[in-house]
Amino acid sequence: MTKQTIGFIGAGVMGKSMARNLMKAGYELNVFTRTKEKANDLLAEGANWKESVAGLSVHSDIIITIVGYPSDVKEVYFGGDGILENAKPGSYVIDMTTSSPDLAQEIAEKAEAADIYAYDAPVSGGDVGARSGKLTIMVGGNEEPFDDILPVFQAMGENIVLQGEAGAGQHTKMSNQITIASGMMGVCEAITYAGKAGLHPKKVLSSIEFGAAGSWSLSNLGPRMIDGNFDPGFYVKHFIKDMKIAIDSAENMQIPVPGLKLAKQLYEELSEAGGDNDGTQALYKYYQMMTPVS
Amino acid sequence: MTKQTIGFIGAGVMGKSMARNLMKAGYELNVFTRTKEKANDLLAEGANWKESVAGLSVHSDIIITIVGYPSDVKEVYFGGDGILENAKPGSYVIDMTTSSPDLAQEIAEKAEAADIYAYDAPVSGGDVGARSGKLTIMVGGNEEPFDDILPVFQAMGENIVLQGEAGAGQHTKMSNQITIASGMMGVCEAITYAGKAGLHPKKVLSSIEFGAAGSWSLSNLGPRMIDGNFDPGFYVKHFIKDMKIAIDSAENMQIPVPGLKLAKQLYEELSEAGGDNDGTQALYKYYQMMTPVS
Repeated sequence: MTKQTIGFIGAGVMGKSMARNLMKAGYELNVFTRTKEKANDLLAEGANWKESVAGLSVHSDIIITIVGYPSDVKEVYFGGDGILENAKPGSYVIDMTTSSPDLAQEIAEKAEAADIYAYDAPVSGGDVGARSGKLTIMVGGNEEPFDDILPVFQAMGENIVLQGEAGAGQHTKMSNQITIASGMMGVCEAITYAGKAGLHPKKVLSSIEFGAAGSWSLSNLGPRMIDGNFDPGFYVKHFIKDMKIAIDSAENMQIPVPGLKLAKQLYEELSEAGGDNDGTQALYKYYQMMTPVS
Repeated sequence: MTKQTIGFIGAGVMGKSMARNLMKAGYELNVFTRTKEKANDLLAEGANWKESVAGLSVHSDIIITIVGYPSDVKEVYFGGDGILENAKPGSYVIDMTTSSPDLAQEIAEKAEAADIYAYDAPVSGGDVGARSGKLTIMVGGNEEPFDDILPVFQAMGENIVLQGEAGAGQHTKMSNQITIASGMMGVCEAITYAGKAGLHPKKVLSSIEFGAAGSWSLSNLGPRMIDGNFDPGFYVKHFIKDMKIAIDSAENMQIPVPGLKLAKQLYEELSEAGGDNDGTQALYKYYQMMTPVS
């Protein structure tokens, strides 16, 4: 059996590495991106350029999207030129954008009506995980044809879990972002406190990072905060987008998320101060802004 | 050189195990506790009962305290019957209670005036760490005679760091508690969200706990929340005490701690609903209380 042809839409930092790993695994790859230059590397490595979403959809067995915002997801899936109108019956569509659970359900319903199998499959693991093919992939969709596309996920990730029906992947990713949001306030407040109290913040980390206060953020982003390194691993503007989706989703379910709301508010203040293109650890800058120099 | 005689005040869950490890390491131990019965085990194992703080202080080379609240610390250190009036010149006093950094500095100043060496040395690692002698010990005080008492700390803990001058141990412990406070909101909100979204929360943990959302709280307390196990590892009432100290201390330094303040507020609502003697993971109950049943 020849491997399926994959249509890939989106060639950002994450998408480009993921597409590359699919080619390495032997899949033929069709590519479309809004800005063609972004796909140049992939085309040079053997991917086929398609002039439109519709053209890509017609000629692919599996269509993977990883674009920016829910509005971008809507644009590529819906409408006469979109994926769902043009993909072949029996094909698979997989949205790997971190996007709205409701939108994932809407795509799944419309896909089913067109005999297309839909999955939402956002990832975590960042650019490093994308490059090394070690992403965590959180999947929502039906159990039935999941095994057919599992090898596709395995070419991009390691920890691949079908979490439930359509939307469950997005809901899982929201749980991930909700955990991070409040946790980041704790890390920033602790490091700010330690510094202002006259301690050596890295020495403080050596006392606290392996105990009950320990977290990925504390050990990985804490030292960057202390060093004043705010380079983006994950952009502030994208994190704000994710928190908005999570808050909308939580409010639909009438779940209180006071920590998440507070974190989003602080990140928005950071964004207004020009922090959109910093990494999420730049929340530390907000606390520095708010702390008087002694 | 014979080992110093240690006077130990406080025989709570933590103190009792710590005192036991000191005896195992060969130190002669004098004990005083407000409620004598609490010391019965230690007395049976060879410790000497002292009828008062003053009596214990006179007859010990090193005095270790681990009591409940800053008010208890004041009571044992200050006044005519207290440690500082009765300890011998050249002796060492070590407060291992999680208490106020300002109070630690006050003790150190008064101790110095009486030719006594004072250290603040709160711990983390819980009852398990205390029993196994693997506590993290965060020390504040002078470098000079620190080496003299290092073996005493080594009998109780593993990760022992002199963080700075008097108060630095308490400030480090506050950094630890600040990190935990906001992080716990994130864990509770994520698990509440996952459950309400119809996911299996433990399956969600399998997707998120080893990535950027990972933390000690998520991996260790998350499963207890999901199982409805609110047994105390660390009491809500003690965590509230610690958060109050941290907020006072942060406000003295004009540091914004909005996450910490929000967490304390939620824990106080939990406390008012009867949660004082639950473990800190019971914050999850607050979120359950606030979420309508669907």
